[in-house]
Amino acid sequence: MGEISPVAVAKCCSYTLYLGTFIQLPREPTTPATPKSAPIYKLLVNDGAVWVDNSDGRIAGSKWDIRSQRELDELAASMGWKLVYDDKEAKDDEGTAPRVKIIRSMGENNGFFFPGFIDTHIHAPQYPNSGIFGSTTLLDWLNKYTFPMEASFGDKSAPDTPSRRAHTVYSAIVTRTLSHGTTSAAYYATIHVPATNLLASVCHTRGQRAFIGRVCMDNPETCPDFYRDESTEAMVEATRASMEYIYRLDPSGTLVKPIITPRFAISCTSDGLAQLGKLAASTNPPTYIQTHISENGDEIETVKALFPDCVTYTEVYDKANLITPRTILAHGIHLLESERALIRERSAGVAHCPASNTSLSSGMCPVRTLLDDGINVGLGTDVSGGYSSSILETARQASLVSRLLSHHNGKENMGRDKLSVEEALYLATRGGARVLNMQDQIGGFEDGMFWDAQMIELGGCLESDADATVEQSALQPGGNVCIYGWETWEERVAKWMWTGDDRNVKAVWVGGRLVHGIA
Amino acid sequence: MGEISPVAVAKCCSYTLYLGTFIQLPREPTTPATPKSAPIYKLLVNDGAVWVDNSDGRIAGSKWDIRSQRELDELAASMGWKLVYDDKEAKDDEGTAPRVKIIRSMGENNGFFFPGFIDTHIHAPQYPNSGIFGSTTLLDWLNKYTFPMEASFGDKSAPDTPSRRAHTVYSAIVTRTLSHGTTSAAYYATIHVPATNLLASVCHTRGQRAFIGRVCMDNPETCPDFYRDESTEAMVEATRASMEYIYRLDPSGTLVKPIITPRFAISCTSDGLAQLGKLAASTNPPTYIQTHISENGDEIETVKALFPDCVTYTEVYDKANLITPRTILAHGIHLLESERALIRERSAGVAHCPASNTSLSSGMCPVRTLLDDGINVGLGTDVSGGYSSSILETARQASLVSRLLSHHNGKENMGRDKLSVEEALYLATRGGARVLNMQDQIGGFEDGMFWDAQMIELGGCLESDADATVEQSALQPGGNVCIYGWETWEERVAKWMWTGDDRNVKAVWVGGRLVHGIA
Repeated sequence: MGEISPVAVAKCCSYTLYLGTFIQLPREPTTPATPKSAPIYKLLVNDGAVWVDNSDGRIAGSKWDIRSQRELDELAASMGWKLVYDDKEAKDDEGTAPRVKIIRSMGENNGFFFPGFIDTHIHAPQYPNSGIFGSTTLLDWLNKYTFPMEASFGDKSAPDTPSRRAHTVYSAIVTRTLSHGTTSAAYYATIHVPATNLLASVCHTRGQRAFIGRVCMDNPETCPDFYRDESTEAMVEATRASMEYIYRLDPSGTLVKPIITPRFAISCTSDGLAQLGKLAASTNPPTYIQTHISENGDEIETVKALFPDCVTYTEVYDKANLITPRTILAHGIHLLESERALIRERSAGVAHCPASNTSLSSGMCPVRTLLDDGINVGLGTDVSGGYSSSILETARQASLVSRLLSHHNGKENMGRDKLSVEEALYLATRGGARVLNMQDQIGGFEDGMFWDAQMIELGGCLESDADATVEQSALQPGGNVCIYGWETWEERVAKWMWTGDDRNVKAVWVGGRLVHGIA
Repeated sequence: MGEISPVAVAKCCSYTLYLGTFIQLPREPTTPATPKSAPIYKLLVNDGAVWVDNSDGRIAGSKWDIRSQRELDELAASMGWKLVYDDKEAKDDEGTAPRVKIIRSMGENNGFFFPGFIDTHIHAPQYPNSGIFGSTTLLDWLNKYTFPMEASFGDKSAPDTPSRRAHTVYSAIVTRTLSHGTTSAAYYATIHVPATNLLASVCHTRGQRAFIGRVCMDNPETCPDFYRDESTEAMVEATRASMEYIYRLDPSGTLVKPIITPRFAISCTSDGLAQLGKLAASTNPPTYIQTHISENGDEIETVKALFPDCVTYTEVYDKANLITPRTILAHGIHLLESERALIRERSAGVAHCPASNTSLSSGMCPVRTLLDDGINVGLGTDVSGGYSSSILETARQASLVSRLLSHHNGKENMGRDKLSVEEALYLATRGGARVLNMQDQIGGFEDGMFWDAQMIELGGCLESDADATVEQSALQPGGNVCIYGWETWEERVAKWMWTGDDRNVKAVWVGGRLVHGIA
């Protein structure tokens, strides 16, 4: 338990070699979508070895069909490696051959490595409100639950330090999302620079790949007096201050990056939005941007009233140069065709947040339509509009909502709206990577990608067990996934998506560093 | 963890007194529904003591506002009790005062007793398929996944014994549902009498209150050759044999009862249905009945074609005298007004199975309409059309689906369709009890009711903790519910419903007997 620092890992061995079953989604569907059918994604399932360069945390190579010790030894011989099975061994041997530390996945038929999950939309300070949203919809909920909670992350009597709550909540949410296998997250913080910077530091220290957004709210007409930026200038200045802190914290931006975060059109002035667009374009490369769009009918009406010059919601952001290839737009449930075309043209991405959309009665996002239009789509937990900080739960909800949408759209739709298990897991990994414009860095196990991965172990309920043993195995700490042994890998992964939880996540790595669990 | 036999408990002490916070739903809404608003249920939250008569497992009395040892001692003095804190003490003392064993709930602000959950619709043999339903809808899914699995519970070479799979799966599902806090369940078994009887024995031995249904399928035109009754006569005979076994197993019917189970109209002949209706009426009191109704559009069309004499699906069952006050109708998504009126007239109940209905794209059941019409509604996991064997997850799905239905039905509906946390938990307890026609026996903590209860403990994430402690507490085995201490009980219970799981269920009792966990 605990984390091994990247330095310690690199000192021990040149490479870490992971051995076992590797499951991932393909970069593209095996069978593309047609007007009559959804695309088909087939799981890529391979037994073998993936080795990671400990100097940069990236995958250096892989070889499938390594199943026996003899085959592993042959691979080591051909590569000129010295295999290392425990840390002691590594220190004893001072030979010149590159040392390679071996980590095996658990369970032969119920354990596998899977790409880390990517949460493209999560409000870190709202974590304490998870599960509290009453019977309200978006705009009521913001005023009743969200703004008061977020306001408590600053302390007016000590404006230069994060509140005590900021410390405890940010520590808890990063720990919790890592335990769910989330290796990358796009976070909204609050309007407070010290607390936002703290969140960046927590992610950097714990080793979670993160985009950290100081929330921008400069419209005094729409934002509560107790929780808003004092002026457009103050908003831009605070945003810049937080960006500079984060760029200094992680100059390479490998692990933690700033993301410019106008909360949504309603909370910002036209001038404020335009200045944030300029700020994003002022860095090289341009800074990431995230905001909300088209979540709720009342919200859309309000945006129309506030920005009478713009025909659509998307146009409000586009006029301010906020729709870019590095922009994450959360929700996008009720986007018009012209808006989708514009988002596609700008290569921006959409964070689909099904648990939140259902909880707040916002509606069912037509994900298939977005995908058909060529828009990048990932998944977002949207804590705490979403009740769960788990992307696995979010994938489940994405599939569930798509099944209701399919029923709603009727038979002529031929079930095209349904997101299969594989497609939901694609959105949770590869799709999210595309939304973050990092599809060559994370989301899969190709050479050169970061080792952002989770080791999954499913429960066992062997049919050959006697009664008593079955009882024990049904209650083992492995959680609710019951694997009997006759299932295909596709069925095992389906059982994982539908009945799994954090108990199945035995270890998590980001950039080769162990950040959760036992390895 | 083992179970204490009821005999051992009764020997130790005359009463068991539970001490702590008790949370339940009221029998009736605090504010009834109006055409413009949903009913409001307010949680009943009481600190105090509930004592259970160990001779019959029923609640003998309760007293609120017992918070200190002094108050407890005063209660004991006034009742003439000898309080017993551990079993040894009980054996040492042979005085004449009734001995009362004390069990305290865990956690002061995060632990409570709650009525056991009631699962009004679950297919025990389908448990191994949990999470496997592909992209199909009802009728395909039955043929592809369900019937082959169910067929394997009999063994043609040994027709008088349950298959090995029956042993392991029935043991696992009863263990699993108990661990989720399900104290009563209405089970569908398979067509096999020995395996059905085995399920009854497992429930009886483990102490789960259960209705056990041998599945009836006598229509050779619609049922697969490898899995159906050989004739109507054979079907009725087999049903009668299983009923007789179960009535012998538990003559009082206190714990386990038979339930006559025509699978659905499609799988039975008119004559078969009529004979099952007669069989139900032939016992005194009449035997319970369960079946499926109006789940899926294709199903409804098929029923129309198969029973051209009947105008509606409900009429098919009613003609056979299968709609009674002791009948559980699963799903009921697409019921017509006339069907709802008939179901109400007959005082039958509906098992609402939201996870299943969404998973199989069956549609969104208009629960508010059923309730407005005066129909009893409970929740069903519908394993494995539903992916989860947890009624807590089912309550969550019921609330989620109702929020989408509310959005779908638009603003003029004023959000009436939404099921609040309290209402979803009402359906999970009191509502289920009404469907089982046992509203005076289970579902709450009134005097005379069975002590069918679960002890819940929520996780703690104290704001005053230092960082390291927060990290530990976020990962404690208590699961994902994070309680900070500032929440009202309503908010704590909401967090439990939205983010809780079996890790929060620390102990479960049925009729006063400990059947899961540590007390």
